Amino acid sequence: MKSPTQFRQVALVGKYQSTISGPAGAHSRQALEEIANYVLDLGCDLVLEADTATNMGMSRYATLNLEDIGRHCDLCLVVGGDGTMLGIGRELAQYKVPLIGINQGRLGFITDIPFDQYKAVLRPMLAGEYEEDQRSLIRGRVMRDGICVFSALAMNDVVVNRGASSGMVELRVEVDGHFVANQRADGLIIASPTGSTAYSLSAGGPLMHPAIDGWVIVPIAPHTLSNRPLVLTSAGEIAVEIVAGRDASASFDTQSLASLMHGDRIVVTRSEHKVKFLHPRGWSYFDTLRQKMHWNEGVI
Amino acid sequence: MKSPTQFRQVALVGKYQSTISGPAGAHSRQALEEIANYVLDLGCDLVLEADTATNMGMSRYATLNLEDIGRHCDLCLVVGGDGTMLGIGRELAQYKVPLIGINQGRLGFITDIPFDQYKAVLRPMLAGEYEEDQRSLIRGRVMRDGICVFSALAMNDVVVNRGASSGMVELRVEVDGHFVANQRADGLIIASPTGSTAYSLSAGGPLMHPAIDGWVIVPIAPHTLSNRPLVLTSAGEIAVEIVAGRDASASFDTQSLASLMHGDRIVVTRSEHKVKFLHPRGWSYFDTLRQKMHWNEGVI
Amino acid sequence: MKSPTQFRQVALVGKYQSTISGPAGAHSRQALEEIANYVLDLGCDLVLEADTATNMGMSRYATLNLEDIGRHCDLCLVVGGDGTMLGIGRELAQYKVPLIGINQGRLGFITDIPFDQYKAVLRPMLAGEYEEDQRSLIRGRVMRDGICVFSALAMNDVVVNRGASSGMVELRVEVDGHFVANQRADGLIIASPTGSTAYSLSAGGPLMHPAIDGWVIVPIAPHTLSNRPLVLTSAGEIAVEIVAGRDASASFDTQSLASLMHGDRIVVTRSEHKVKFLHPRGWSYFDTLRQKMHWNEGVI
Amino acid sequence: MKSPTQFRQVALVGKYQSTISGPAGAHSRQALEEIANYVLDLGCDLVLEADTATNMGMSRYATLNLEDIGRHCDLCLVVGGDGTMLGIGRELAQYKVPLIGINQGRLGFITDIPFDQYKAVLRPMLAGEYEEDQRSLIRGRVMRDGICVFSALAMNDVVVNRGASSGMVELRVEVDGHFVANQRADGLIIASPTGSTAYSLSAGGPLMHPAIDGWVIVPIAPHTLSNRPLVLTSAGEIAVEIVAGRDASASFDTQSLASLMHGDRIVVTRSEHKVKFLHPRGWSYFDTLRQKMHWNEGVI
Repeated sequence: MKSPTQFRQVALVGKYQSTISGPAGAHSRQALEEIANYVLDLGCDLVLEADTATNMGMSRYATLNLEDIGRHCDLCLVVGGDGTMLGIGRELAQYKVPLIGINQGRLGFITDIPFDQYKAVLRPMLAGEYEEDQRSLIRGRVMRDGICVFSALAMNDVVVNRGASSGMVELRVEVDGHFVANQRADGLIIASPTGSTAYSLSAGGPLMHPAIDGWVIVPIAPHTLSNRPLVLTSAGEIAVEIVAGRDASASFDTQSLASLMHGDRIVVTRSEHKVKFLHPRGWSYFDTLRQKMHWNEGVI
Repeated sequence: MKSPTQFRQVALVGKYQSTISGPAGAHSRQALEEIANYVLDLGCDLVLEADTATNMGMSRYATLNLEDIGRHCDLCLVVGGDGTMLGIGRELAQYKVPLIGINQGRLGFITDIPFDQYKAVLRPMLAGEYEEDQRSLIRGRVMRDGICVFSALAMNDVVVNRGASSGMVELRVEVDGHFVANQRADGLIIASPTGSTAYSLSAGGPLMHPAIDGWVIVPIAPHTLSNRPLVLTSAGEIAVEIVAGRDASASFDTQSLASLMHGDRIVVTRSEHKVKFLHPRGWSYFDTLRQKMHWNEGVI
Repeated sequence: MKSPTQFRQVALVGKYQSTISGPAGAHSRQALEEIANYVLDLGCDLVLEADTATNMGMSRYATLNLEDIGRHCDLCLVVGGDGTMLGIGRELAQYKVPLIGINQGRLGFITDIPFDQYKAVLRPMLAGEYEEDQRSLIRGRVMRDGICVFSALAMNDVVVNRGASSGMVELRVEVDGHFVANQRADGLIIASPTGSTAYSLSAGGPLMHPAIDGWVIVPIAPHTLSNRPLVLTSAGEIAVEIVAGRDASASFDTQSLASLMHGDRIVVTRSEHKVKFLHPRGWSYFDTLRQKMHWNEGVI
Repeated sequence: MKSPTQFRQVALVGKYQSTISGPAGAHSRQALEEIANYVLDLGCDLVLEADTATNMGMSRYATLNLEDIGRHCDLCLVVGGDGTMLGIGRELAQYKVPLIGINQGRLGFITDIPFDQYKAVLRPMLAGEYEEDQRSLIRGRVMRDGICVFSALAMNDVVVNRGASSGMVELRVEVDGHFVANQRADGLIIASPTGSTAYSLSAGGPLMHPAIDGWVIVPIAPHTLSNRPLVLTSAGEIAVEIVAGRDASASFDTQSLASLMHGDRIVVTRSEHKVKFLHPRGWSYFDTLRQKMHWNEGVI
């Protein structure tokens, strides 16, 4: 059943951060094995991500850790939801390995291939029939007294938040060294187009197409009613300084730094890397958006 | 300079919760003394709130604590901002003592008499020339396993919030025992008309006239975009149950209870008491609203 | 199959404003006949609304026009959607006849009995097993040079709108003679709790429980960003004056008055009448709201 | 008083579309004369825009119409507000003549030089000391049965609106031929970054920095609550088709086409031209934004 493939070395990642036991675990393992065998049948070399192999108890396949997958593989298949996909995307960004997402549950914005269709969908994709979908990455750093004390990549957003029971935080926003505003609010989100469908949207931010070279700054419950979401190019540097408020924190996707101090600056630039997701031929960002947003379903 | 007064026993409250030293302290003390002497000149009996007397170092006046002011006084003059006024309002609510607010700084929604006009304004008010402005109070309780573990009054709002760096909280809302919705959000505000110009407004809630016998439930950054502010009568009972999320907290104006547990229920009813603010004759809620909201000033 | 009924004279209304021909018409006629016969079987007297009888070609039943239904009937069954129900509600308001809504299509906020369940649902309701749901009515008038030139009732809302291609309208809002604000906007909605789930919601207004004795004023695309929805008691009088803008119009539910002139005042008060809808025992406003708003369905 | 200038031929435009008589007219004429003479003193050649000369009764200066100004001049000084500036910008876009705006009234987003400072500000600017501020232009067309029946440039926005008293309009939105959504709403705005501070903002759109190569699509009072502003790159083609609704209209900045028919398509692309505004050295977009939005002024 060999067929032509554009991708020689294919990696497969599942639950790389946690174990699942019981029937759900067996179910996941079986799904991964089916996909692995199918990819081998299509004539590719297959490696299993090392933690996935361990967590799933799958010992029959060659394994590599994520770093080596980045170095050696031509494609990475991810079985999971948007969160898993974004996590792997961050890890592999610097290696330019494209990703395909297969979803066993409710489809996501990025993981749009349902598990029960993986055969029909993967075969043409591995043969080169796909749509590319490039996503920008945010490079976020926390500067204290001029020293970088934290650095991380984010695919969705960088969020600065007030402490749990400490009233508002006051934040000074600068763009490329220009003063923008002092904002008193619960917090502030700097979201990428990818993150514009996540937390940013709940806080009142606009949707942004992935082709926009920009971020949106969205205040959370701002004190000043005219503080509205602001879309900026990603070419520059956004700095957010903690002016007032106790126990503020900064989150970069799922990673957090708590107990920020007055004068700490959260600095956001565009990573030099992009993440490349592959979708089935004919895929449209707008189809996914419409379905996920429940447009055209007559809400009220 | 005796003149007829409707109020026999008048209490005066300033900084009852903190001391101010240096020039600002002297300035505040002088303001309180001027007002006290003016009230005495108008033929009233004057008592100074006991903590204010201590904090300000004012020993020349008769003093009473807030409880006794509530029991024995006919009127309470508050020198401070909206926060001070709301605090005193909560304390005196059960005693039905009306309050007048005098403001040394930027005028508030409630404290609308500027210090430099106190003479011209107070004389007719003490003689009975005023507008009444009644405000409802929220009675908030936290129930755990059927036991009330916390109870407080709030003039502005009851807020249930997620923990500092713990993602969303999931809340089950019931009204008079009817299920309303499960909401995933940063939190949820139940605001009185008085509180509708405060945090609730920042989170997207409507303005509510004080004569509305209702509360508004406002979700903070809700996951479901159709979760909109909901105005309910204050006659019923609103219950908010913590369904998911770590380290949620509940705040009642300025008082907080942290580390809420799953199953904890924040229960809100209307207090049997109201707070009565007095304003100068001709005062209109809408004039204050328009000025504070900067309407008719051509924002953008 | 006689059974005790609380309602002696029952009216039935269907398409009273338009004819339906073809299969859909036959389908509607059959539905009305089934319901009519069932009501007769339950021991009630039944009259058909006269226009419905004409439009549907149903000549076997006694008929009355709406006015006489109001005068003589104890209950009115409406077969149609929310729009029909609100129209009949307006017409019958002064006669205090309660209404029950049966829906052949997608259930509405008010018409919540699906046609295929009418038998099981109507029997206990006609026997007195129901929930009452009272709705306030808006009395709207247009005053020109002190003369009332238009008057209408509205169950949903009174809307003042700019002309089609004429830029903004400027409106002066007063409440009980107090100046509130001059607003430049596309228009302004004054909505009842019933109307709070309609146009008002699209323009950013809050949801309001029917038990709230109030209206909400919602600006449409306001020039000043701090112009937010404002909830007022329905006890007073709201006046909206056309200050600037060509070809403004005022709508009262479905009735409109176009070509308003500068100085025209749209005056809103609460009608002395209420409309009483009956729902099946166990009905909850919140269940309907949750279903219509698609809460708890994981939008995004 | 000759000084080096980067710009040889300088045009001056004032009220080119209307006459002003009386004291205001004399005031405007005097302002234009002062500026004209100052520019001549600086060693530039000066021409007055022909309609301005006629409307103002200024016969002492050489004149050119806008088209010839575009062909022959190196710089255009505009005396007026943002509206005038945007109009001239549209007219001169294809000629790449940079513009400077001088404002006799309240400063705008673009016209940021107050008249009483023109001397101190213009001298260094004419000598080459300025900041460039490039703005994209929208090319809008209306297609009927495949034929272009209307075409216009817009600096702010293209707006599709429902008829005056005709309920909602239903619009089908496509991007580069991909179906996005059918929207029922009062209308829909496609705004440039320049237009993001105008009507779009009132309808809930985000602010967009001029460097963003994108438009924002903003629904006006959308029926579906999850219909949110959507930021798209300006590289593609946005088409909006009238699906339902009577008397819809399309506006391109100030130009309108009424009585649109079902099937009409409003098609938006990016113009090949940009407009270049010049600002004083040190000018920052964010300073203007902060001042115009009244940030940091403690609204509420």
